Amino acid sequence: MLRARGGWRALRRCASLPRARRAVRLRVREALGAPEPADEVQVQGWVRSVRSQKEVLFLHINDGSSLENLQVVADPSLENRDLTFGSAVEVQGKLVKSPHKMQNMELKAETIRVVGPCDIWSFPLKMKKRHPLEYVRQFPHLRCRNNTLGSLLRIRSEATAAIHSFFQTSNKARESAEKTHFFNVPAFLTVSGQLHLEVMSGAFTHVFTFGPTFRAENSQSRRHLAEFYMVEAELSFTESLQDIMQVMEDLFKTATSTVLSKCPRDVELFHKYMAPAQKDRLEQILKNKFVTISYSEAVEILKRASQTFTFKPEWGCDLQTEHEKYLVKHCGEVPVFVINYPYDLKPFYMRDNEDGPQHTVAAVDLLVPGIGELCGGSLREERLPFLKSRLQRLGLADAYQWYLDLRKFGSVPHGGFGMGFERYLQYILGVDNIKDVIPFPRFSHSCLL
Amino acid sequence: MLRARGGWRALRRCASLPRARRAVRLRVREALGAPEPADEVQVQGWVRSVRSQKEVLFLHINDGSSLENLQVVADPSLENRDLTFGSAVEVQGKLVKSPHKMQNMELKAETIRVVGPCDIWSFPLKMKKRHPLEYVRQFPHLRCRNNTLGSLLRIRSEATAAIHSFFQTSNKARESAEKTHFFNVPAFLTVSGQLHLEVMSGAFTHVFTFGPTFRAENSQSRRHLAEFYMVEAELSFTESLQDIMQVMEDLFKTATSTVLSKCPRDVELFHKYMAPAQKDRLEQILKNKFVTISYSEAVEILKRASQTFTFKPEWGCDLQTEHEKYLVKHCGEVPVFVINYPYDLKPFYMRDNEDGPQHTVAAVDLLVPGIGELCGGSLREERLPFLKSRLQRLGLADAYQWYLDLRKFGSVPHGGFGMGFERYLQYILGVDNIKDVIPFPRFSHSCLL
Repeated sequence: MLRARGGWRALRRCASLPRARRAVRLRVREALGAPEPADEVQVQGWVRSVRSQKEVLFLHINDGSSLENLQVVADPSLENRDLTFGSAVEVQGKLVKSPHKMQNMELKAETIRVVGPCDIWSFPLKMKKRHPLEYVRQFPHLRCRNNTLGSLLRIRSEATAAIHSFFQTSNKARESAEKTHFFNVPAFLTVSGQLHLEVMSGAFTHVFTFGPTFRAENSQSRRHLAEFYMVEAELSFTESLQDIMQVMEDLFKTATSTVLSKCPRDVELFHKYMAPAQKDRLEQILKNKFVTISYSEAVEILKRASQTFTFKPEWGCDLQTEHEKYLVKHCGEVPVFVINYPYDLKPFYMRDNEDGPQHTVAAVDLLVPGIGELCGGSLREERLPFLKSRLQRLGLADAYQWYLDLRKFGSVPHGGFGMGFERYLQYILGVDNIKDVIPFPRFSHSCLL
Repeated sequence: MLRARGGWRALRRCASLPRARRAVRLRVREALGAPEPADEVQVQGWVRSVRSQKEVLFLHINDGSSLENLQVVADPSLENRDLTFGSAVEVQGKLVKSPHKMQNMELKAETIRVVGPCDIWSFPLKMKKRHPLEYVRQFPHLRCRNNTLGSLLRIRSEATAAIHSFFQTSNKARESAEKTHFFNVPAFLTVSGQLHLEVMSGAFTHVFTFGPTFRAENSQSRRHLAEFYMVEAELSFTESLQDIMQVMEDLFKTATSTVLSKCPRDVELFHKYMAPAQKDRLEQILKNKFVTISYSEAVEILKRASQTFTFKPEWGCDLQTEHEKYLVKHCGEVPVFVINYPYDLKPFYMRDNEDGPQHTVAAVDLLVPGIGELCGGSLREERLPFLKSRLQRLGLADAYQWYLDLRKFGSVPHGGFGMGFERYLQYILGVDNIKDVIPFPRFSHSCLL
């Protein structure tokens, strides 16, 4: 029956309701999905619309628990000056079967209390208006009242939970790496937790971290933020890049299936308005194995392309956005692993493939349509002599003595990857600008809140 | 039977093993708990001890999956120079019932491969030695090889998961608030996500966040870090401080029960060596309701105390550590909620109780034995005139215009709290120094890694 469950919901035992009127407090989502009618129900939320007719007053109430609003039907005598779009209300009454096909239940109001009025003249959101995302982005403290941002946050939350639960199978460790001033030595915000995860992977065979990450990207691009969330994983006793790629693919598919099945309406909102074909495409992608090509093959494909590129494709040069786009298209607009990059393009910790003198390293990037790089990973150089001589050539051997130590005391072949969480959301939802998939976007020259 | 499950463990389908030798790869924890003997098993890990006898070679292997090691029994011919304490090995053989009472299974080795040798002369950890926590703290990149840190990280991970799962019931939002330079305006690391959670609680009735938090505490105390993890929750349509306290208590109890039942051996390690009576105490605490006293009562109790305090207790002054200790002891060494603090002691966002002109606010601190403040929370001032005049008096009305806005457009009574995750771990495990419950402790004058 309609009863509050324990834990997080315990507070809904209505401690703040007067004893005489012990209504069951329901969230909008629960009210809409209630299996049967009920008396003495209370619902709280913000008014999304007010429609006053001669005989009846209609309200739509939303409390963030679902995309759908709850329809409230009331006697026109319950109307009052403060009952406007945007106001916060507490409605008490009977939950009854709705005569409308589109909804299961509606609330026949006995009392309506305006808890917090809304000054609609200065409120930047307007009733029943579809505001452009660029517009609502100016109001970081109010934009979560918007349908799109509401859906995004429910999806984001579900995806976060799915990623945690994907990794929470057995032993693992959480860590993140932030530093501020005042440590006697210069300290920086983390651009990656990888090196710290490598520390942990010297005692735990499977570790992951998921937290805020900082990059001073000076780009005003639609794919970069100064602060974003990254999930990173590291696996010990792993000698094959394929193992790492398998986890990347499993993570993507598991998280995506979970989000699609747990937030169907919210996901639909994005697909419908922003990327009409995305749902079918995702379903295809979840069924098939991701494509893998080597960097060298990628360069060959680009060289054979009829398209003219701004940057001429050449072995030894970085793949540019235009190249990534072409490769993904060439492979059929599906996620593509590109592996074994030139040694000189990649950071010191990546493992030499020994397919020639310092020729390629066991690196992998996962490219996806519309975004480009979604994940990056590699096997790490676990052999002390290789790592030492590379760091010495870079003049970094002293600074990274602790990192070399890890190769002296029971070193193991290992590798890992990172996935940008906002790019992941951007891709599965088909959102054009990365600023619209994070609650408080911060990027160069902009830190509104 | 002994088979790798999907997801995160998919990689253990042994892609890196030669086809001819398809052993089933098991973690130490799985090998120890195997329901029946098995041939062709592979276990990987780090050597915790080597004992060579005339007829037989004994190894203990640990891979971070459990506190217990797996005993490996081998022919002395398999011994080699590199097979030392600390080295990384891959052992293949038969899993057999152990003749020892203390363990279920052991591994009869057919091959032992040293994957990564360990230079034991320079390795700062020594075989079978109990190193003091202060000693291992000097080696942030190696201390996770230590039993205590290993247990801590498994417990930390379980507690993190329990907290997430406590809040992951229905709708909620995640956010965190980090900023770096280069935004055109000064930007700071977050000391709390509360104000941003309040933004979200204007559209979602239940929100939480859990991430790194920064405070420039100049204290060298055993209870402060410059970077720590904080879980924060905010509840809309909440008019009673009791509601907030109920969630605090439920969160504490749920997370603690989960950790106690999921990591019994790891928790036991801490309780045994650091806080022998803690287990019984925790069990009592989980059964009883937390004690609640008002700030005014607290001051009365302190004034009546026979003990002499360095800081004389007086209404209107902050509670000092010595006061908190006394109060907790007075209440029977259990968690104590102290509520309704003087208006002038607390930040501008706390709700005026109107029990006198600017007399007290609806604030709550949760004090626990040995630690002091574990959680802090309050109802927030949702009434525009109250908040505005307070901000005006502080000269902050312009800077917080956005925050005032939240009270103009459908304001709701709301409140929330934060819990320091490291203090939580310190308390339930009985760990003296907060630096020993976080993978990479950073505090004033120290940022080793």
